[in-house]
Amino acid sequence: MSIVTLTTDFGTTDPFVGIMKGVLASRAPAATVIDLTHGIPPQDVLAGALVLRHSLPYFPSGAIHVAVVDPGVGSARRPLCVVTSGGLLVGPDNGLLSLAAPAAEVRRIVHLTDERFFLAPRSHTFHGRDVFAPVAAALATGTEPAHLGPEVKDLERLTLPSAVTQGDRVQGQVIYVDHFGNLVTNVPEQMLTARTEIVIAIRDARIRGVAPSYGAGQGGEPLAVVNSWGLLEIAVRHGSARTVLGAAVGEPVTIEPQR
Amino acid sequence: MSIVTLTTDFGTTDPFVGIMKGVLASRAPAATVIDLTHGIPPQDVLAGALVLRHSLPYFPSGAIHVAVVDPGVGSARRPLCVVTSGGLLVGPDNGLLSLAAPAAEVRRIVHLTDERFFLAPRSHTFHGRDVFAPVAAALATGTEPAHLGPEVKDLERLTLPSAVTQGDRVQGQVIYVDHFGNLVTNVPEQMLTARTEIVIAIRDARIRGVAPSYGAGQGGEPLAVVNSWGLLEIAVRHGSARTVLGAAVGEPVTIEPQR
Amino acid sequence: MSIVTLTTDFGTTDPFVGIMKGVLASRAPAATVIDLTHGIPPQDVLAGALVLRHSLPYFPSGAIHVAVVDPGVGSARRPLCVVTSGGLLVGPDNGLLSLAAPAAEVRRIVHLTDERFFLAPRSHTFHGRDVFAPVAAALATGTEPAHLGPEVKDLERLTLPSAVTQGDRVQGQVIYVDHFGNLVTNVPEQMLTARTEIVIAIRDARIRGVAPSYGAGQGGEPLAVVNSWGLLEIAVRHGSARTVLGAAVGEPVTIEPQR
Repeated sequence: MSIVTLTTDFGTTDPFVGIMKGVLASRAPAATVIDLTHGIPPQDVLAGALVLRHSLPYFPSGAIHVAVVDPGVGSARRPLCVVTSGGLLVGPDNGLLSLAAPAAEVRRIVHLTDERFFLAPRSHTFHGRDVFAPVAAALATGTEPAHLGPEVKDLERLTLPSAVTQGDRVQGQVIYVDHFGNLVTNVPEQMLTARTEIVIAIRDARIRGVAPSYGAGQGGEPLAVVNSWGLLEIAVRHGSARTVLGAAVGEPVTIEPQR
Repeated sequence: MSIVTLTTDFGTTDPFVGIMKGVLASRAPAATVIDLTHGIPPQDVLAGALVLRHSLPYFPSGAIHVAVVDPGVGSARRPLCVVTSGGLLVGPDNGLLSLAAPAAEVRRIVHLTDERFFLAPRSHTFHGRDVFAPVAAALATGTEPAHLGPEVKDLERLTLPSAVTQGDRVQGQVIYVDHFGNLVTNVPEQMLTARTEIVIAIRDARIRGVAPSYGAGQGGEPLAVVNSWGLLEIAVRHGSARTVLGAAVGEPVTIEPQR
Repeated sequence: MSIVTLTTDFGTTDPFVGIMKGVLASRAPAATVIDLTHGIPPQDVLAGALVLRHSLPYFPSGAIHVAVVDPGVGSARRPLCVVTSGGLLVGPDNGLLSLAAPAAEVRRIVHLTDERFFLAPRSHTFHGRDVFAPVAAALATGTEPAHLGPEVKDLERLTLPSAVTQGDRVQGQVIYVDHFGNLVTNVPEQMLTARTEIVIAIRDARIRGVAPSYGAGQGGEPLAVVNSWGLLEIAVRHGSARTVLGAAVGEPVTIEPQR
């Protein structure tokens, strides 16, 4: 039984996602289709790439992951299928697939050129319906990736800003803001030299130590946790860190020893 | 294996859609249920009808499409099942089903009167749960439409405003605005006499020619494309045409030869 | 075939719900997963408990209902499985499960302690992924609730404010506001002594009688109906009672005989 996941910036107000599911239901009726999210901010390729990276490990290997955040739809950017040790990624070659496909895990990259697997006629504005959903249906019904087009060797890669260590300081930044207003940083748990004797600085806030969980904070006060992605995150109990701190993606975060 | 799609204005904040799925899971456990969208603007029957018309062709014929945008729930409007060459439509007789059921494709219209197929007791406020979901479950498990009630001959029809040609001008209007803020007009591709030597006028904007895709525009500038529904659409690359132009459903659009 | 429903305050913007579905697809691939709603207001345990109470009767008994509205995640609050005559409830012991599990229907309460059924390592911030989804997968694949941990006898219970009768007056309040802006009160149909000779007072509005359905009202005017949950509800036809009346959860409502 095949699993096909969908990740887009289409939202769920319009029927675009439902139409993709119609194509899948028509061509791969036995596949199980799972929405990862359709709430990627419009055309925010980095947010989509982060979501894929942190979600795919929880799916069976062999699942087919369709991702469409595609400001260049209709332009020359290539449609790809990337085969990794964890699954099959299908989407545009604009960096969206890259964080979930580190070089060491990539087994094959296929440029999707064989139009027999597309819908005809093919629009210039909705490749989710006309290219990516029917290709996923082909994969879900047993078509080999190698049959979908020629193998290529390169993949457009996003360069996610890395947190850096300067002496006893760690300098990072906010890379994702979730629905609760929690600020996810690019500082992995491994870069934290301590849990208690540190100060996390963001905007006007100076947060002492990493709390074990969201529940540890005072209502309204910012706190820091290691989140479910293994990254340092700034939260406000019973509130929104985005609103309280006025921070967004790109906001610098500094971690220093407590003086 | 039966497919049941759901299209409503219920949103996904409340459990109303989930409750309909509970009824379907109880009465037709083998059916595959697919959300088309629950984001139809509240009580906007025209938006729901457009969504159905442009989505159903992508589903297998024989699929059962339940639609509930129903300002008259509890009043005398009839619940219907409309059998077309493309599928089965289930919903209120208020025009919602009409654009997806052109007269030439209608095979049978059934007035849903047989209460044995409804939930009991039946509320006056939630026919999605009490009438339409259980009727869809009956259809999904093999009940013939003719067994659900008497055949009727008429169906309330929406009159979608048509674009008109006046000499070398085409006069249309915006009929749908999507999640990205793209303005979908009622001007079909076939009414465009040319792709390049024309000017599309909407509000203060004068757009020269139809672009091949969204990617062709300058950031922030309005552009015109033929969208995935085969209709002329006004978009703004990396932005919202709704916001940039201040336009909404009903806004006039004029296409003229370039002078 | 097992049914697993999901009710959370995670929203659908982030991939958290999709990740839970990945865990379920990995561990219980044959289960049917149904979203009840992910739009519970953040950390609003009462809203989640009401949604569960009014939705579960429409699902097959034996369905597994996972609910995660969990401000205390990572603290000492217990994870539970509550077996009732209507189904299995899985979630935190913070009152969320209590309205759907009246004492007379509870057959067993299990404290989920056996870590073999959890994901490892287990985060302190996302028990939906690490505890509740894998436990639901275990139940869906035939694990007996009694094998998940020790039986306990108590359950944290929410005390929903009750409407009270004072002479010929009924005093209630708004307990839930839906997507349309309808104001759901805690006054059950049974407490209404009459349908016509009464006045319902809320904020500045004096509503005469209970209408048979939403369609009965004048556009823009508040009206009262008995809703699909069997509760008195204040609505505005073609509008939002929340906006028109400026009311929210907790707003008092009084029902009196018409003088």
